[in-house]
Formats: sequence, C-alpha cells, structure tokens
Amino acid sequence: MHSLLRWLFLVAFSLIFSTLFAQNIQWQEIYPGVWKGVAGKPDSYDLLKAADVTPAPALQKMAKADFPLNAQEIHFQLNSGKTYLRFPLERNEQLFGFGLNFQTIHQRGKILQLHADHYGKTDNGRTHAPTPFYVSSSGYGVFVNSAKYMDVYAGSHVRKDAREPAKVMDRNTDNNWEAHPYSDAVEMLIPAEGVEIYIFAGPKPLNAIQRFNLLSGGGCLPPRWGLGFTQRVHRLSTSEQVKQEAKAFEDKGFPLDFIGLEPGWQSKSYPCTFEWDKSRFPDPAKFVKEMDAMGIKINLWTNPYVSPDAAIYQKIKPYTGSHLVWNGIVPDLSMPEASKILFDQFEKEHVKIGVSGYKIDEVDGFDSYVWPDVATFPSGHTSEQIRQTYGLLVQKQSFEMFRRNNMRTYGLVRGSNAGGSSFPYVIYNDNYSHEDFITALINSGYAGVLWTPEVRASKTAEEWLRRFQTVCFSPMAMINAWSSSMEPWTFPEVAPQIKAVAELRMKMMPYWYSEFAKYHYEGIPPFRGMSLEEGFGIDIKKEKTTASLEDNPYAEAVTREVKDQYMAGEYLLVAPLFTGQTTRKVILPKGKWYDFYTGKFVGDGEVISITPGLDQIPVYVKDGGIIPMMPMKLHAPKSGEKVDLEIRHYGEKNSSYKLYDDDGNTFDYEKGMFAWREIKVEKQKNGSFKGSISKEESGKPNNIGAVTWRFMTP
Amino acid sequence: MHSLLRWLFLVAFSLIFSTLFAQNIQWQEIYPGVWKGVAGKPDSYDLLKAADVTPAPALQKMAKADFPLNAQEIHFQLNSGKTYLRFPLERNEQLFGFGLNFQTIHQRGKILQLHADHYGKTDNGRTHAPTPFYVSSSGYGVFVNSAKYMDVYAGSHVRKDAREPAKVMDRNTDNNWEAHPYSDAVEMLIPAEGVEIYIFAGPKPLNAIQRFNLLSGGGCLPPRWGLGFTQRVHRLSTSEQVKQEAKAFEDKGFPLDFIGLEPGWQSKSYPCTFEWDKSRFPDPAKFVKEMDAMGIKINLWTNPYVSPDAAIYQKIKPYTGSHLVWNGIVPDLSMPEASKILFDQFEKEHVKIGVSGYKIDEVDGFDSYVWPDVATFPSGHTSEQIRQTYGLLVQKQSFEMFRRNNMRTYGLVRGSNAGGSSFPYVIYNDNYSHEDFITALINSGYAGVLWTPEVRASKTAEEWLRRFQTVCFSPMAMINAWSSSMEPWTFPEVAPQIKAVAELRMKMMPYWYSEFAKYHYEGIPPFRGMSLEEGFGIDIKKEKTTASLEDNPYAEAVTREVKDQYMAGEYLLVAPLFTGQTTRKVILPKGKWYDFYTGKFVGDGEVISITPGLDQIPVYVKDGGIIPMMPMKLHAPKSGEKVDLEIRHYGEKNSSYKLYDDDGNTFDYEKGMFAWREIKVEKQKNGSFKGSISKEESGKPNNIGAVTWRFMTP
Repeated sequence: MHSLLRWLFLVAFSLIFSTLFAQNIQWQEIYPGVWKGVAGKPDSYDLLKAADVTPAPALQKMAKADFPLNAQEIHFQLNSGKTYLRFPLERNEQLFGFGLNFQTIHQRGKILQLHADHYGKTDNGRTHAPTPFYVSSSGYGVFVNSAKYMDVYAGSHVRKDAREPAKVMDRNTDNNWEAHPYSDAVEMLIPAEGVEIYIFAGPKPLNAIQRFNLLSGGGCLPPRWGLGFTQRVHRLSTSEQVKQEAKAFEDKGFPLDFIGLEPGWQSKSYPCTFEWDKSRFPDPAKFVKEMDAMGIKINLWTNPYVSPDAAIYQKIKPYTGSHLVWNGIVPDLSMPEASKILFDQFEKEHVKIGVSGYKIDEVDGFDSYVWPDVATFPSGHTSEQIRQTYGLLVQKQSFEMFRRNNMRTYGLVRGSNAGGSSFPYVIYNDNYSHEDFITALINSGYAGVLWTPEVRASKTAEEWLRRFQTVCFSPMAMINAWSSSMEPWTFPEVAPQIKAVAELRMKMMPYWYSEFAKYHYEGIPPFRGMSLEEGFGIDIKKEKTTASLEDNPYAEAVTREVKDQYMAGEYLLVAPLFTGQTTRKVILPKGKWYDFYTGKFVGDGEVISITPGLDQIPVYVKDGGIIPMMPMKLHAPKSGEKVDLEIRHYGEKNSSYKLYDDDGNTFDYEKGMFAWREIKVEKQKNGSFKGSISKEESGKPNNIGAVTWRFMTP
Repeated sequence: MHSLLRWLFLVAFSLIFSTLFAQNIQWQEIYPGVWKGVAGKPDSYDLLKAADVTPAPALQKMAKADFPLNAQEIHFQLNSGKTYLRFPLERNEQLFGFGLNFQTIHQRGKILQLHADHYGKTDNGRTHAPTPFYVSSSGYGVFVNSAKYMDVYAGSHVRKDAREPAKVMDRNTDNNWEAHPYSDAVEMLIPAEGVEIYIFAGPKPLNAIQRFNLLSGGGCLPPRWGLGFTQRVHRLSTSEQVKQEAKAFEDKGFPLDFIGLEPGWQSKSYPCTFEWDKSRFPDPAKFVKEMDAMGIKINLWTNPYVSPDAAIYQKIKPYTGSHLVWNGIVPDLSMPEASKILFDQFEKEHVKIGVSGYKIDEVDGFDSYVWPDVATFPSGHTSEQIRQTYGLLVQKQSFEMFRRNNMRTYGLVRGSNAGGSSFPYVIYNDNYSHEDFITALINSGYAGVLWTPEVRASKTAEEWLRRFQTVCFSPMAMINAWSSSMEPWTFPEVAPQIKAVAELRMKMMPYWYSEFAKYHYEGIPPFRGMSLEEGFGIDIKKEKTTASLEDNPYAEAVTREVKDQYMAGEYLLVAPLFTGQTTRKVILPKGKWYDFYTGKFVGDGEVISITPGLDQIPVYVKDGGIIPMMPMKLHAPKSGEKVDLEIRHYGEKNSSYKLYDDDGNTFDYEKGMFAWREIKVEKQKNGSFKGSISKEESGKPNNIGAVTWRFMTP
C-alpha cells in the first residue's frame, strides 16, 4: 500500500509538474547522430507505426556526431491535453521542410497546421504530405512523430521571457519599428498527451535529411521501367484503344514504359468496385499480357472507397468508418482485417494478372470530399489520425502486396507523410502551375517524398515543351493527358525538341537509376533544393543583396528563396524556364560549373544570366561530374539485358561515381543481388583524362556492355 | 463505501457508454422557447461566461413553443477528449449564421472551423465573430456555447447509417451522379469533454434569432450620437488639427458626431502606453472639452497590448500571457486583476476627461500578429479560449467602465463572439470590398453582432458616392479616411448627393434610434438578411428558377443567395448599387412595396429591374410602413432637446409604429427612464389617411416637438 501511494504521488506530481512547468527532454542516441526523446505519454498510434518500416542499415554506419542543439533549450510542457514543444532558433538560421509546400522554400517565420489535404493554393500546412520534419541551414533536423494535426510556429512569435526581446519603439515615429522582431524558438502544439521526437545531426543539412530518410527505411527504389515514360488514357478507353495508344508511341519512336488507366476500367466508380469493366476490358489478363509483350506495364487508377456493388462490400463493411466518401464506405486501413480484404482483392484481380502499379487517388483530403473530422473508425483511431496516415497506409499495404509477389512497383499517390520515403510512390495533384510544380519538386527533397511535375495539356507549343523539359528531369516522366487527349507530338513545331529531351531522359537512365539507389541505400534525395548543395549561398560573387538579417553568413540563401533551380542527382543543376521566359538568372554555387550539353565552363560561385533558346532545358554539371548514359531505347532495359555505356566526364577534377545495378524488377536486391561499380576519372601526366570502371563481382548482377568514355570539357 | 463504489461504477459506466454510443441530450426549457442541454462535462469557461450578461427581460415574455426539432435525432458522443454533436437536417432547409461571413449567406453544405480571426478572403469559419449559432429556414436556432475552435460540417457529409443514403451510380457513365448527395445532419466536433447547447424555437427564423439575442442580453442600445457621423483623423494629428477637421465639417454643413484618433494620440504605440502624447495633445482634458463644445465626441484607437513604457506595465505583468503581441504583453482579461488594472487606467486617463469610446483593434487574430496557440495564460484558460473570447472581454469590460460612469458609449471592435449582442460595438476590418461589406452586413443579423461598411477612399466619384450611400444605411455612419485624407466633399461632382444622403441619415435618426431600441429590448437585428422577411422567397412571380432541391417550398430563397439587398429596420428594404452598376434586380417579398423617395408602388412579390441613376440609393418601403423623421441637424439631438417629427406613411395599409425615446446618453433607461410612443395611421371613411401618436406618460422622457404627417403614397 505504501509503495502504491508513493507511486500515485509520483505520478500525480510528475503530471502536475509537467503541466505547470516547461521541462527538458531526455535524449537517447538510437543510431549514430539520431536521438529520440519522449515528451509526456505519446499516442499509441503515430506516423512511424502507420508506415511500419525498418530503418535502413546505412543508418548504423553514419558518422558519429554530437547532439546538434543545446538540449537545455528544448522544452516541453503538457497543457489541457496538448503537448507544447519548443526548439531553439538562432538569428542566422533558415528552416526548410514542414511538408510538401508549393509556394515557399523558406519556412522560418511561418505558421502552419500540418494537415493532410490537397494543396489549396496557400502554404498553410495543408498539403498532400504534411511531414512534421524540418531541417535547419545550421545542419540539424527535427521530426515530431505524431499523427495529429500539429500547430507549428516556426520562429513567428516572441515570448515574454525571450533571451533577447526587441527594443521598445514607437511605430508612429520610428522607422526601425518591426512587427516581427527576432523570435528565438520554433514552437509546436500537438493535441496529444505526449509525443515522440527525433533529432538528426548533420554536420550538413543534407546529412540530417539522410538520417531522417534512413530512419524511414531509406528512399524507395523504383523498378527500372518506372524511370521511363508513362502516359494515362481517357477514363472510358477500351483495351483496344489502350493498345492503339501504345502503338502510336511506338510508331512515333517515342519512349513509353507504362500506361495508366483512369476510372472507367472499373465496373463502377466512384465509389469503386475494384473489378474490371468487362464491356471495356473483356479479358483483362490477356490485355495485360499483350501490353507487356509490347513493353508496356499497366497502372490502375483507384481510390479506396468501396461501392455497395463491390464483391468485397459486405465483408469489409464492419471494418469501415462512420461516414461515406464519394458515396462509398471507407476501409479502416489501420486494421489488418480491412487491409487484408482490400489488398487480397487487388492482388487477385490485378497483381496476379500482371498489373504493375496504381494511381491511388483522394487519400489526401479536400475536406468536402474525404471523411469529416467527426467520423469514427472501428480501430478507435480518430478521424484525424486516419487522415494523417491514410496515404502511408495505402502505400505501405500495396507495396507489401507487390513485395509478396516479388514484383517491384512504381505508382502515384495523393497523400503521404513522414515515414513513407521507402514506398515507391510519387505524389501528384490537380493543381497545374508549372512554377508551383518546381517549388514542390524542391520541397519534396526536404520532406522525404517524391513529387512529379506531370504534363497534361498546354495552350501553346512553348508551354508544352517547357513542361516536358522539366518532366524529363523529375522522379517520374509522366504525361497525364487522359483528359486533354494531347500527345507528345501534338505541336509539330516542338515535336523534335520534345522527342530529343525524352530521348535524353531514356539515355540518362543509368544515372537516374544510380541516383535512386543512393536515395534508397543512403537516403540522399535524388531531387533537392539548392540549399543542400555545398557552396551555395556562400561568397556568391555577383548580385550580392544586402542581408536583412545581421551577421548572416548565408546571406543569399537566407534572404532569397531560390524556387526555380534544383539539383538532380549528384552532379546536375537544372534551371528550367517557364512559359514566356526567354532569359533567366542561374545561381551557381561555389566551385566550377559546366554546360551539360557542351561541356563548356559557365561560372564559379556566381549568378549568371542566360538566354538559352527553346530547344534545351538549361542543365549544368559540377566540376568532376560523371554522368553514365546508355543508348536511346523506347523501353527501360529488361532484367539481364546488357546495356552499353557512354560515360561522360565534365570539368577539370579527378573524380569518381558509384554506378548501381540489379535486375531492375524484383526484390532480389534485398537479398544482396545488387552491385555498385566504381567509375573513376583521373588526369594523366599528358593532361588528358582517363576513365576506369571497377571489375564486376562474381555472383552479382552485371548488365554493362561496351563502355565508351566522353570527356566533355575541352 | 458501497455507495461510493456504486457512484464510481455509474460514472465509469456513463463515461464508457458516452464514448461508445451516441446519446440523446436531456433538454430543459429555461425560457419560453429556449432549451438548454448539456453533453458530457463542459469546460468551466465558455462564451456566455466570458460575455457575462443577464438575459433580457423580454425573453420571459416570448411566446410558448414546442421543441422545434426531433429530440431523438439530436445526438452527442464523447471521443478522444472531443465532443461530437449531431443535429437533424431535412432536405428543404437552408442554414444561416455560423458567424460573420463575408462572401456567403447560405451555410448549408459548408465546412467551417469557427475560429476568431481576421477575414482572410475565404469563408472558412475564421472571422472576426465566429459565432457558433445557426438558424434554419425551418424556423429554429442552435447555439453551441463553447470557447473552443469548433469544427462544423453543416450538412456536408453522408453517414454510413444515413436514413436515405444516395443511390449507387457510376460516375463514368451516369449523368445524375452527385459528389454531394443529401446529407441529413449538421455535425460538429468540439475539442472539449462536453458542451452546453441551446435550442431556440421560432416559429419564424427571426423569432429564433430574437431569442438568441435576448439570451445574450438583448441588442445594444447606442447613444443617440452614435447614430450620427464619425470621421477618423491621421495617426499623427495634433489636437489643433482635430479641431480643424471638425471645423471643416461644420463649415461645409456636413453632419459629424464623433471623431476617432488613430495610434499617435498615445505616447507610444504599438505596443501601447494608453497615455496621451503630450507633444501632439498637450492638454487632453481641455481638448476633449472643447471638442464637446463643438458637438463632437472623441473616440480613441487602441489595442490592449501593453508597452514596457506604460505606467501600468509592471503592475499588470503578472497577469499577462506567455507571448508578446506587437512587442507588448497581453493582459489575461479573463482575470479580474488584469481587467481592473487596464480599465482603471482607461477610466482615469480617458473616460474621466470625457472620452466617449474606443476603436479596439487587433483583438480578433491574424495568426502572425496575435499570440500563438502555444501561448499560456495565468488564468489557466487556453490560448484558444482566450482568443475566442478576447473580443467579448474587451467589449464587456470597457462597456462596464462606461456604465459605472453612466455614460453610454458606441465604438468599434475587431473581434466578438456569441453573447456579445448587448455590447455597443460595431465590427470593422481591413478588407475593403464593397460587395463583401454588404454580405457581412447581412450576416451580422444572423450572428448577433453589428458590422459597418465604412468608407475610406475611392478611386472615382461614383465609388465614393456608392460607398457613402450604404454607410448611411448601416449601424455606424463611418468615414474612416485617416489614411487617405479624403473628405465627403473630395469629389465635387458627387458632393451634393453625398451631402443629401448624409442629411437623410440624420433626418432618419428617430427611425434608427427606435430600431436599435427594438434590437435592445426585443432582440430584432436592425440590419438583416432577406430570408428573415416574411413573404420572401415564396411565390416570387417573375424570374422563377428551377429549384435544384425537390419539393422545396422556399425555392428562391434556398437556391439563390441574395447578397445585395437587405432589410434596414422594420420597414425598409435597401438595394445598393456597386461601382460600375447602372441597373440591378431587386427581389420584392410578397406584399406591396413602395419607393422610399416618391411613395409610388413598385411591385409585389416579384423581381423588378431598376436603373436608378447615381443620385439615390434604392430603398423600398413595405406596405403600411411608418418612418418617423426629424429635421436635418449637424449633430444628434442632445438630452432633453425637443425634436419636431415628420412622420411618413407609405402604401395602403393601416398600420402602427413603436417610437422609442430616452435621454440618449445615459443608462437611466435601465431604471425605467424611457418611453415607447405608439404611432398609428388609419384610413378614414373618405379614403384619406390619418395619423395619431399616443400620449406621453408622465415621468417618462418626451423629446417630441411638433408633429407633421406625410402620406407618401398618392
């Protein structure tokens, strides 16, 4: 009795204490440079539980590091059923992340409610992937593992007890008056009795992102065909029409790897039956097989909302939520029972006949379509928790279904969240601003997700071409013209340029595939913002702006958002043009840079102005850049197909490149069936370069044919 | 011990039961036609507690009525610390209310989070007055008394267990497919362990609104001068410049009753000292007195955020929140200590020298300026609760300060909420869309608040005039040209028309004052939407539209939002024109309507097209309309000043009007010092009309001078 009383007293005391006073968090280093802390009593269900992934092995091999923040300045406090968190913020930091934002890169000063939703033209925290992770320009990352709507004040407010409160001024008469003086904290409010927090060390911001991605299982590894082209066909297309579309691409010599079918392939949708419409697809198995013989995989549109006419309706009904979505019942996919019924049906109807992937629609939100926050679910998880994790759940469960069948997949999804980086899905939406697409592509690298700047339709040849150019330098080369019925060759005046850039995409497949392997094994995002590039923002020679924050060593990066150029893989800087633009500026980080097409030197740590013409998308290569390329093919190489390589080298530096290879289709790489080959380029005594490639390892895949070398810089 | 166990068991059982199952609510009739119900265990602090008002006596005298809904169809359920509410919704209902919306009148189908905030160009629940009250076209009202951010699904979603779920259709092939079929419930989610709910009977929607307003203490009764004109001067104006401005109005013969001083009257702001700037106002007491002698009252801008340089800073600091706003500390006005320190200072510095009111700024929100939701307050109330009620608190506490001094006030405030209808404040904001202003004016009548469509600046003479015209038919005739320095006579080409409509506003003061008295004593909003007008939407003769909801008796009202005409007082229908409009349609409810200016018949239950020219704002009078008017004056009549009346009658009907009178300045009306005089107009045997007015009661105010009658309809 005595010890029970003492225990009760301790519990009550700790409860009262944590309610009345801000407390520090005990940090436990769970991997090198990764610390976990627990504030209060976290919910039993969270983002990592929904994603249910195993951290990637490379996480154990990351460099040792010190705790990157002053632990005394990280506080939590419980108040009225919510958890308050506070992280320190220095004057010279910039923050990146907080999910897939579409209009802004810099997050310092923002107020967000992280909330799974479609993108509603405002970066307010509502987005397809509201990842509660941020990375600081000072080289650390913070992840709050909660499946609740989380309020974030990213250095927007000043506390009464701030270390350096603003000087008192009179707004009426003092020109130096500021509405928003220096805020020394990122503050968050999580509607839960506690929460799990992860801190990631750098030293560089990219290292913190790597650790975050590796904790989430590493990045996804698409099948090789996933990096080829995809087109989507009209929702009422028949199997014959789909074949004709594939034939049209072949006839035009335009690359194509997979075709997506829109809702009409189902007997009824919305809500969905998940069963084939036999009037349009009389023999689905035969159709999928014939398409495969043409080198084309099939991707199926669906959402998870079940029609009363679906065969699985009665069986799944007990495991569905209280409200309808698109007039269908909503499987509670946090319950294994619901997941099994739904994905067993997918497996039987689609995967077993060779369907290679899905476009999983409407799992993100849009309040008036998805279930309301008043909905209840049989698992007992709240509507909010299910909404924050639904994208993760459909990805995880469909991914596992493909893994069971030892078939890799690469598909589309409208919703994701932290923990989902290893799922082979690319986020898309209904917005169609080319500028927003590029901002999102940049932000995807800070959020542990992939994003595609697809092409759908265009009013002018110029727009059609400009959009195609960026699609070819993105995670998925998607033509999504099911509604416009446009084709890559629709504008004859730009058809050759479009074909050229499409061919370039295909030729670069060894590079893209290796870069995705680095995403998978090392957690390095294949597409990412300039702030993660060494030498960016430091000592930019030209166009120096007056920094608005004093004593700021990252003047350019902090004061100016760079939303129109990005890094693609290890060596490439892509600087797209938008419709109407004929000239633009490109910020080259410190170090020498070369034109991708000509190999000529273009600048070093400076801002250049370019007028590149319509034909090509400006791409620059870092000094020492090595780009492995293959001959143009209409389809991605098949398993075991030998492929010749042309290995390009740019600039003046000796350098090396890790080339990845595996069968491109199965999960055998998880059993060690993959190979890294080291490419090296070294300057000879006579001043010329020489390249070499490491030997194949016995028992490992080797798909390399003849190798030629091309030293691009004269 | 046995009874304790039983009690524990009962508590546990009821808790588990209410978590697992939706329950009905026990309703208690607390006034005729007003029921209170309690779901779960409500928060100890709510909107009515913040407003702290006594229901108006008239509430007891409202007609008896039956409970207006099927009580079996009202449910609540507790889930994860939140309260779920569900109210039934028939197919033919339209819903109005849910706060001061700016773009929409019809709320059915909307998803809102009721959240005190500035208006951010979207009606998403974030507004200056997020009143959790709605009224149905079927004649009942619902008020949820919570100071939390409340999620509202106003018939937007369909439950799996809906009585009449939608027929299954195929979106791909069936044209009748609907994304949003009939939803049979208004659902809400309140982040609290329980909540208090009030249901108001009709039979008409207006009766439900009356009951709601009377429960909130009735509408406010402004001083008579509050219904005259007000101008605001530049923030750096000196006392001499303010006098010059008043003189300019006098010289031009333009009415003016009060002038507002912007931030520069304070020694420092923002944050505020609440003390006079002695360089601009060397002798405030003398200044206020001199202005009063000119017939001009003084209104002071302020926000409640305290400067470190304020005399009260150290004293109030212990009663302030954790975060700064505009670099000032934030008084926790839910604590009497904070309120006393702040308003004692206001009283001493301002009220005691004759200042008549305030413009209380920035108490609504705008996330990046007001305290964050992570803030804590010494009262223990959450940041959210303080934000939802801060507007109520400043109104209540300043109102009580004036009441202590037996001086009525009429001011401006940026934030309010349910319970605040008796506080003499008008809401304003920074938006300046004339159309939005009128929509807000209409919605104010459904939300228990007042709103002013002020004039600030205009690019053209037409716009200047059109805005002036609506200001003259609104709760506060405000010219807010402190920033533009524009004057009513700035555009000479419309100066005469502006003067004419301003004079009309002044002449109509007996009408306006009586209509506000009906707001105060009977809860009838002086400015309100057409849906509250009998005969509106029924049998509109022309322009019948096909109803999109079947079997709908309110076809027009339900299917078409009328956002450009409104009722002003008992008898007037105002149909303003916006810049660029030369012609418009006006929907006349069933019954005969007459032109306000000519008395001519214009229509009966029909849609008319008008081309009224620039000179006048179209105003129509209901058959039998009686409008008491006075001679033009530059200032509102003073206490005891006898005023001649011209009483106008319109149309063919015998009718009557209740004319209100009191001293116009003090709270003596609360002690019975007021009079209602009955005006009657009756048709004589010879067909002409004759008017009469009831005798004055002895010991009651009587400010009526000579009475003339004007029968407007030929």
